[in-house]
Amino acid sequence: MTSSADSDVTRTAHQRLIQRLREFADARDWEQFHSPKNLSMALIVEAAELVEHFQWLTEQQSLRLPEEKLAAVEQELADIFIYLVRIADRLGVDLIDAAWRKIEINERKYPAAKVRGNAGKSSDF
Amino acid sequence: MTSSADSDVTRTAHQRLIQRLREFADARDWEQFHSPKNLSMALIVEAAELVEHFQWLTEQQSLRLPEEKLAAVEQELADIFIYLVRIADRLGVDLIDAAWRKIEINERKYPAAKVRGNAGKSSDF
Amino acid sequence: MTSSADSDVTRTAHQRLIQRLREFADARDWEQFHSPKNLSMALIVEAAELVEHFQWLTEQQSLRLPEEKLAAVEQELADIFIYLVRIADRLGVDLIDAAWRKIEINERKYPAAKVRGNAGKSSDF
Amino acid sequence: MTSSADSDVTRTAHQRLIQRLREFADARDWEQFHSPKNLSMALIVEAAELVEHFQWLTEQQSLRLPEEKLAAVEQELADIFIYLVRIADRLGVDLIDAAWRKIEINERKYPAAKVRGNAGKSSDF
Repeated sequence: MTSSADSDVTRTAHQRLIQRLREFADARDWEQFHSPKNLSMALIVEAAELVEHFQWLTEQQSLRLPEEKLAAVEQELADIFIYLVRIADRLGVDLIDAAWRKIEINERKYPAAKVRGNAGKSSDF
Repeated sequence: MTSSADSDVTRTAHQRLIQRLREFADARDWEQFHSPKNLSMALIVEAAELVEHFQWLTEQQSLRLPEEKLAAVEQELADIFIYLVRIADRLGVDLIDAAWRKIEINERKYPAAKVRGNAGKSSDF
Repeated sequence: MTSSADSDVTRTAHQRLIQRLREFADARDWEQFHSPKNLSMALIVEAAELVEHFQWLTEQQSLRLPEEKLAAVEQELADIFIYLVRIADRLGVDLIDAAWRKIEINERKYPAAKVRGNAGKSSDF
Repeated sequence: MTSSADSDVTRTAHQRLIQRLREFADARDWEQFHSPKNLSMALIVEAAELVEHFQWLTEQQSLRLPEEKLAAVEQELADIFIYLVRIADRLGVDLIDAAWRKIEINERKYPAAKVRGNAGKSSDF
């Protein structure tokens, strides 16, 4: 498993981001608002701000964003990441380990040989 | 700036996650579906699956999830993270740098002294 | 079935709303952007703007909104309704009939005697 | 104003839908869960289930759904409508009046002559 080695290295850096966001919330007395329920709402609001940038674009246009729009999209991605790290922290979830575990699950759920070129639901295979 | 040092260390580990997800999509010939537009839709769908776990819970209940539910929530967080990493990769955005930069912006937007204990919009301050 | 009688009466009025929204899009040459895919994105963006109003409120606070906030929420509800009517129109779906049919399905899926006071998933019953 | 006449006719039929949904919730003792906050979460979850049907489709494909998929999409539209009617009811908002008012606002915000063929933000005009 390659994920363990990654996690050792990343955990230190990732832990600093977690810590920074804790301090940010704490300095504002915002921990009281940061229940996982509320944070999941905040996260989906940020996800929708990302979607808003793409709603009237073609798929091709969404791959070649003008510089100004890309800068705005980058901030939305950051907002989503920040809330994601916060929720994981509040629930005691290790986000990086969880991602590597989910990739293993997806590997079994969507066997490359079966789903090749077909983006349906796993239940279709 | 502490973020630069973090980024050096993290970039290697984070880069491996990016690479793994590229290979996953490539092995399934899914790059054709992974426009930022489509990925933003997939991301918000996963965000909604997270919200669904919390929709009828009180805030207090959302902080103390039963083990089985926590395991399910962990997978939703992983799904969100995976799509977030994919979109950032497709757009050439460095997610970790973007997060640290956004924290600096938020620091100025929500001065601790002014917003303490008040979770309103920045425009309210 | 009470729904049929309702539908006869409502269809005329509802049809005028559908017609008004068609003309609005047509006058702006926006039909080209109004694929169900794009409209579903626009709808979820409006749904998120509704969620944003409630994300840091308690459930009790969400029931007693200040007048100004209620006026803003009302506009979000209207936006959601407008996009919902548009998608249904583009897909040839009769929204009112669909709602009455779904209520019948829910009636069987969530038998009152079994689910009373319990807001879980139907699969839990 | 054509909306007033519509509202008179529609209000009776629409009122029956509102009443039916109240009874449905009441028979299950679900009013306790139906705060606007929680209902906004339920609504966006249903909106995401709609988005999920379209996420990997092209815009053209989303306009020509296979019969089985269209039937599933119809149920998602119904679910969104049901929660929308519920929230409006809990907040004392008249959804139909709100929609007609919002159309008037949009008419001023997006003057046909200026925005023709351009689906940007109102702030771009």
